[in-house]
Order: sequence, then C-alpha cells, then structure tokens
Amino acid sequence: MRNILGANDDIAAQNRKVFAEHGVIVMNLMGSPGSGKTTLLEQTLARFADKIKIVVIEGDLFTAKDAERIEKSGVDVIQINTAGGCHLDAPMIQKVCASLDLDALDLIIVENVGNLVCPAEFDLGENFKAVVLSITEGDDKPLKYPLIFKESEAVLLNKVDLLPFTNFNLESARNDLTTLHPTIKIFETSCTTGAGLETWCAWLLKKLEAR
Amino acid sequence: MRNILGANDDIAAQNRKVFAEHGVIVMNLMGSPGSGKTTLLEQTLARFADKIKIVVIEGDLFTAKDAERIEKSGVDVIQINTAGGCHLDAPMIQKVCASLDLDALDLIIVENVGNLVCPAEFDLGENFKAVVLSITEGDDKPLKYPLIFKESEAVLLNKVDLLPFTNFNLESARNDLTTLHPTIKIFETSCTTGAGLETWCAWLLKKLEAR
Repeated sequence: MRNILGANDDIAAQNRKVFAEHGVIVMNLMGSPGSGKTTLLEQTLARFADKIKIVVIEGDLFTAKDAERIEKSGVDVIQINTAGGCHLDAPMIQKVCASLDLDALDLIIVENVGNLVCPAEFDLGENFKAVVLSITEGDDKPLKYPLIFKESEAVLLNKVDLLPFTNFNLESARNDLTTLHPTIKIFETSCTTGAGLETWCAWLLKKLEAR
Repeated sequence: MRNILGANDDIAAQNRKVFAEHGVIVMNLMGSPGSGKTTLLEQTLARFADKIKIVVIEGDLFTAKDAERIEKSGVDVIQINTAGGCHLDAPMIQKVCASLDLDALDLIIVENVGNLVCPAEFDLGENFKAVVLSITEGDDKPLKYPLIFKESEAVLLNKVDLLPFTNFNLESARNDLTTLHPTIKIFETSCTTGAGLETWCAWLLKKLEAR
C-alpha cells in the first residue's frame, strides 16, 4: 500500500507541475454516492458558461451516466471508468490529460468516484480538493470520515432545502469541521432552491483569478 | 489484490463454517455514509428486544459513535476500527468472534463501513448481505454501483418519507434493481415514520427461523 501511494504521489507531482506550466487550475471534487456532486456541477457549469474554459473529468465505476448529464451542459467531458475501482488515481489523470490542449483551458474539474473514504488518500496533482456532504447524510460524518474533510479546502453542505425534514445540526457540523480543519471554507448549498450557489461560484472564480 | 481477496475468502469460509456449527445467523449490512444503517439498526433492535439474542459488530474508520448509539438499545456491541480502512474483512470478523459465546446467540449483525464500493468485495463469512440505499442518494445508484446490489439478498430503499422532496423514481429504481438481481428483496422503509419496518423485521425473523 505504501508503494502504491508512493508511486501515485510521484505522478501526482508530475501532473501538478504540468498543470502549473500551462496555467490550468484543477479541482478534485469528492463526496459520498448521492451527495449531489453531479447536480452541483451542472449548476456550476451553467453559471460559468462562456466565462471560462472548462473540461470535466468524470470518474465512475462502470457507467457514463454522469458524463452524459454533464455533456448536456455543453462542456467537454472525459469519462474514466475504474472498472469497479473505488477511487481515481494520478496515473489515470495523467493519461487522460495527455490528450488535452491545456493551454486552452482555465479549469479542470475532476468528479471523483462517489466514496467518502478512498478518494481522499490519492493525490491527483490537483490544486485543491472540495467535498460535498449532503444534509441527509447526517452531521456526524465529518468526525466519522475525518481525512476527506482535512484534505479539502472547501466543503459544501448540500441539499440544505431538506434541513427542515432531518435532524441535521448545522452548528454542530460547522464546529466539527473547523475543529478538524480550522481554515476550511464552508458553503451551504441547495441545487433545488439555488441557495449558496452564487457564493460557491464566486469563490471558485477567485481561485482562478489567483493563478 | 487477487492474493488479498484469496486469503480473505479462505478465512471467510472458516467463519461461515464456525457460524453454521453454532447455529448463528450473520447479516452483513452495507450502504453509503448517511444512508441510515445505524438508525435502521436501532429501530430493528427495538422490535427484536427479548425475542432473540443479538450481537452487533460496528465497523468504523476511527470513532465509536455508532457503537455508542447501538449500546443504548441494550444490545451487546463490538467496535472494529479500521484506522482509515474502507471496509471490514474476514480476519477482523474472525478475531472479534473468537471472544463471543456463539452458542448463546441467534443473530450477529455486522454494520460495515459506510461505503457503496469496497465492502461488497470482501466476503466476511456472513449468511447474507443487505444494503441500505437512501432515497436522497438518487435512483441512478443501483446501475452506478452494481456489485453491492448484485451481492445483497435485500435492499432497503430508506428514508421514503423524503420521497416528496426529491426526484427519486421508485419504479425506475425497482426496475434497475431487479434487472441487476432478479431475486433481490426490496423494502421501502422510513425510520422517521416507521414505514416498512415491520415487514423488514418479519423477513429478518424468517431468515432466523429457516436455520
């Protein structure tokens, strides 16, 4: 396992160097199955249309269901099927990025496999990670799955429209998140009502401007 | 990887033999983080109190949060912390079961690590697997994460009280599930309203009577 991670880190460092040379920012978006990553991307892409050049890399076990959804937004999508594998790794990203004209791009968004555990262990060479946590998953998840929240610069507490129908305690979740990771940026979002999406997109845009 | 799975399968077979010799039924309960596994167990145990002798084995990365919840129901709990590992395996189960008086037990419920991918690959020596899928995770999940649904004898479509607030299509989910696994038993449950819980518990009790 240490060897696998070591080899992965070497290629992640190469990826990071290449992305920097070409001035493209890469976000690794993670979260449980059904936390709302793909819908969040659809909403994010709709707000960025024509402003910036984006490619989405979709990680899935077998299907291209998410890639087909993203394609409808008019953004180029590359599908990686892991054939049952529980996470993306740096060699997969290196391989698909070799075919991209990176100079023509501002942002690559990698939607990782739906999994709150394994993706956090594999550096892809991204500039930053973000994690989507659905309100319906419960406020105990940051402490139960700490690594992914420690590794992520931003967390989206998603589906806040469902707050009235759950026992999710926002204050408790915020406390746990900042205990684990004091500088983590916390967004409260809903792709049903649109809540928080402008703030999230503005933050993402700022990350691009800071290049 | 093949070696790891091979070694795991050997010990799983030993576990299965031991469980059969002592007449104890073992259920491996799986599902995404926040699908509602622990709450379902709380509700299930409450309905089984005094009827049958149960031990719960709780798999978590680091914390004992779920075990503490189950303990309140008066049922014995054993905590396995995987130290970041994304699934339980057969040696972990073998180790903790060595300290149990299996003859005194009817049922062992193993709550696996919250993960819709990796736990499905590791046989624990259980009699059967069941998977919890929350309505809020979306109806596309069976086809996106097929192995866990192929491996499970039962699926609980959980949190059906949230159906009116989501775009989950029950018919589509049922079709996909039975396409993947024609004999899978499908329950529609809610631990908020209690819907489907009696049917689920009756099925579980029948599994015990069939010993």
